[in-house]
Amino acid sequence: MTMGTLTVPFDRTLIQAVLDETGFDPANLSIRETNRLVTLIEGQLDIRFVRMEFGIPNLPYDPVAIETAAQAESRGQVSRQYPPFDGIPELKQEASRFIRNFLNVAIPPECCIPTAGAMQGGFISQAIAGNRKAGQDTILFLAPAFPVSRLQTNLLGLRYDSVELADHRGDDLIRAVEHKMKTGKIGGLLYSSPNNPSWVVLKDEELRGLGELCTRYDVLAIEDLAYLCMDFRANYGVPGRPPYPATIASHTKNYFLLISSSKIFSFAGARIGIAAFSPAFLKMKAPALKPKFGTANVGHAFVHGGVYCTTSGVPQSSQWGLVGLMRKANAGKLNFAEATAEYGRRARAVKKIFLRHGFHLVYDNDMGDPLADGFYFTFAYPGFSGPQLLLELLHYGISAITLASSGSSRTEGLRACVSFVEESQYDLIDERLACFREDHPAG
Amino acid sequence: MTMGTLTVPFDRTLIQAVLDETGFDPANLSIRETNRLVTLIEGQLDIRFVRMEFGIPNLPYDPVAIETAAQAESRGQVSRQYPPFDGIPELKQEASRFIRNFLNVAIPPECCIPTAGAMQGGFISQAIAGNRKAGQDTILFLAPAFPVSRLQTNLLGLRYDSVELADHRGDDLIRAVEHKMKTGKIGGLLYSSPNNPSWVVLKDEELRGLGELCTRYDVLAIEDLAYLCMDFRANYGVPGRPPYPATIASHTKNYFLLISSSKIFSFAGARIGIAAFSPAFLKMKAPALKPKFGTANVGHAFVHGGVYCTTSGVPQSSQWGLVGLMRKANAGKLNFAEATAEYGRRARAVKKIFLRHGFHLVYDNDMGDPLADGFYFTFAYPGFSGPQLLLELLHYGISAITLASSGSSRTEGLRACVSFVEESQYDLIDERLACFREDHPAG
Repeated sequence: MTMGTLTVPFDRTLIQAVLDETGFDPANLSIRETNRLVTLIEGQLDIRFVRMEFGIPNLPYDPVAIETAAQAESRGQVSRQYPPFDGIPELKQEASRFIRNFLNVAIPPECCIPTAGAMQGGFISQAIAGNRKAGQDTILFLAPAFPVSRLQTNLLGLRYDSVELADHRGDDLIRAVEHKMKTGKIGGLLYSSPNNPSWVVLKDEELRGLGELCTRYDVLAIEDLAYLCMDFRANYGVPGRPPYPATIASHTKNYFLLISSSKIFSFAGARIGIAAFSPAFLKMKAPALKPKFGTANVGHAFVHGGVYCTTSGVPQSSQWGLVGLMRKANAGKLNFAEATAEYGRRARAVKKIFLRHGFHLVYDNDMGDPLADGFYFTFAYPGFSGPQLLLELLHYGISAITLASSGSSRTEGLRACVSFVEESQYDLIDERLACFREDHPAG
Repeated sequence: MTMGTLTVPFDRTLIQAVLDETGFDPANLSIRETNRLVTLIEGQLDIRFVRMEFGIPNLPYDPVAIETAAQAESRGQVSRQYPPFDGIPELKQEASRFIRNFLNVAIPPECCIPTAGAMQGGFISQAIAGNRKAGQDTILFLAPAFPVSRLQTNLLGLRYDSVELADHRGDDLIRAVEHKMKTGKIGGLLYSSPNNPSWVVLKDEELRGLGELCTRYDVLAIEDLAYLCMDFRANYGVPGRPPYPATIASHTKNYFLLISSSKIFSFAGARIGIAAFSPAFLKMKAPALKPKFGTANVGHAFVHGGVYCTTSGVPQSSQWGLVGLMRKANAGKLNFAEATAEYGRRARAVKKIFLRHGFHLVYDNDMGDPLADGFYFTFAYPGFSGPQLLLELLHYGISAITLASSGSSRTEGLRACVSFVEESQYDLIDERLACFREDHPAG
């Protein structure tokens, strides 16, 4: 079949040759390998893919970020001086307001610590959760999850366990997590909501149950809010006005919240997030932390044993940039939820095309409610395993990654990110998937 | 005695009250505690100290840093996008040139990895050196050393050992290090040169000996070049022209070089350094790395298991800033050695005043040569331990930190950093130390 100048499926011999040359294991392609492979195929065949493998933002940031940083620089050459390890006061203040405005949680500025991306916040949070009490060195993931979180667990020499969200929601989720916590081995509970990659959004009653378990079994929750306010079924964009996204911080004193500026503010290149932890951590003592963190105080361990020891703080310009963004959002003049809703619109359109051609969603509901449309969606096709489907779709100019790489038990599925899909490509996706179905009538 | 409106020694009761209120252990003040204490005393007594406790830069950066970053931002909103985990190509290229120009070592761009300060570079280097081979989980420090390096060893769950530079130089240093390496437990050899805090500069023949040992015992050297070209006894500032500072990279294939922009470019607030590793690491396989780093390849482990897992790369604006600085230095238009020579002039003047009043240098020679004048110097006074001397000097308006905190065996000594001493304060230092001597005639 011809599409413009293209014919799908693309030449199998050529694609095989590209794959052979990379030396990658086709049954087990990582996200970066998929990315590399697709770029090579695009170059070799002179075609353009619908690229959905990478979970990276693709919207402009608000210029107030760079303006605020530039002003601070011209006022006093702020980049001359080391940043305070616990963050510049202006950012701590705005972050505290931001969390009150958009999560309805009171966390004082001293508990709001800038980190080099939520990545650093997650790394240090896991380090603390897994070393705080002897024997509790396992991080329990709600799967699927961001693959790098698991790499962090490994780098820290901690253990990993998981509960699958596709199998457990509501009361059943709480029971499954309690079953794990009862072993006494769990130090941290890690999850994202909205979830990368499934886009499942945990309900307030689930977070209440999880929070109560964290309190009962003295486990630290690590709540990854990379996609804060990006459940577009609700109107979360207005500061200080309900509704608010559900958070475990409403239900336990044992939490780290990780806020990333990468997706919500499209500020990924500044590598800045906020780790906001429970005010209880300012007093919480954990002698088991002392050998690795030099202090038994959980809050102090985060800053001094964690941020200081790994990067000596976060660049001044990134901090000032986020001051500008959060200040504007707090003032109700930067509706980041509305800006990112563009991802939701793209997801709705693209999911519809996939469903029309015999694909189905893998994670397809929130306890009976239809799943939200957002940054990611998950899909599968009858008769294909995830790796098989990934490879086959490469012949139709569409790229994604396997759910297996995110620790999902749904190994038949793939994750698609819509950030780089443009409206002008919808017809192309439609044509390509139509061809795919024609060639694979099982669906 | 009255100095302007001040009398030294300052009121002992008042200072004791301030100390009591902090709750700090006076026998064991950390650098930040000292800093805090001095700030409180300054406020309480309405006086100004000669502050030498913090090792932070205090010169302007060259505006090309911020200009280059601003240009990149206005060209394409670079802060929208995640930086490449191994660094932007422009910086890798300039870093490779910089290392050839100022160290006379050939390291290709692919081995030059931007890190969130040399701090992150040191953290990952230690993680690799201490996990590369089973049993070799000890990092051997040439003491004294930057205290945070040791905190990193602890955070990583590695072991620490040390050889004291005050006791071992030249052949004797090589023998002492070999004695440790012979145990088979050493995975990494860590040191800075010029050394923080002693300002000892290792000779080329010492680095040759250490390099040969690293090769023979398969140990990875971690060379901290935070004060690159700041041995002002030689004229190192001219790119591509001898003399060059000595480096272990000339003598072994087992090395990480850590280059910091904080001191040499006064760009501490940008949190950016370069970890440049041996090209041999691109091929070097270490299966023991796999569980923690997800790869057995040493070079890949640094980027993917290290930088990616901890911060997902270094902020775009910091990277572009360093591109501007290194490009200008490579072109011979930014003589950073000449700019930082200001620290050497201050050290020469301040050391002279200390010596005049009965103080002596603790680390006082480089294998018989007079020590260089630079960012730090070390001193002691007859009859005082380090902590005692630190406390007593607080009554004379002078602050420093103990050498004990840097792992030095010379516990009678203190470290002074001259970056915040101004020429206008020399007379004041002279007066205050004269009073000190009058009150403590033992010196």
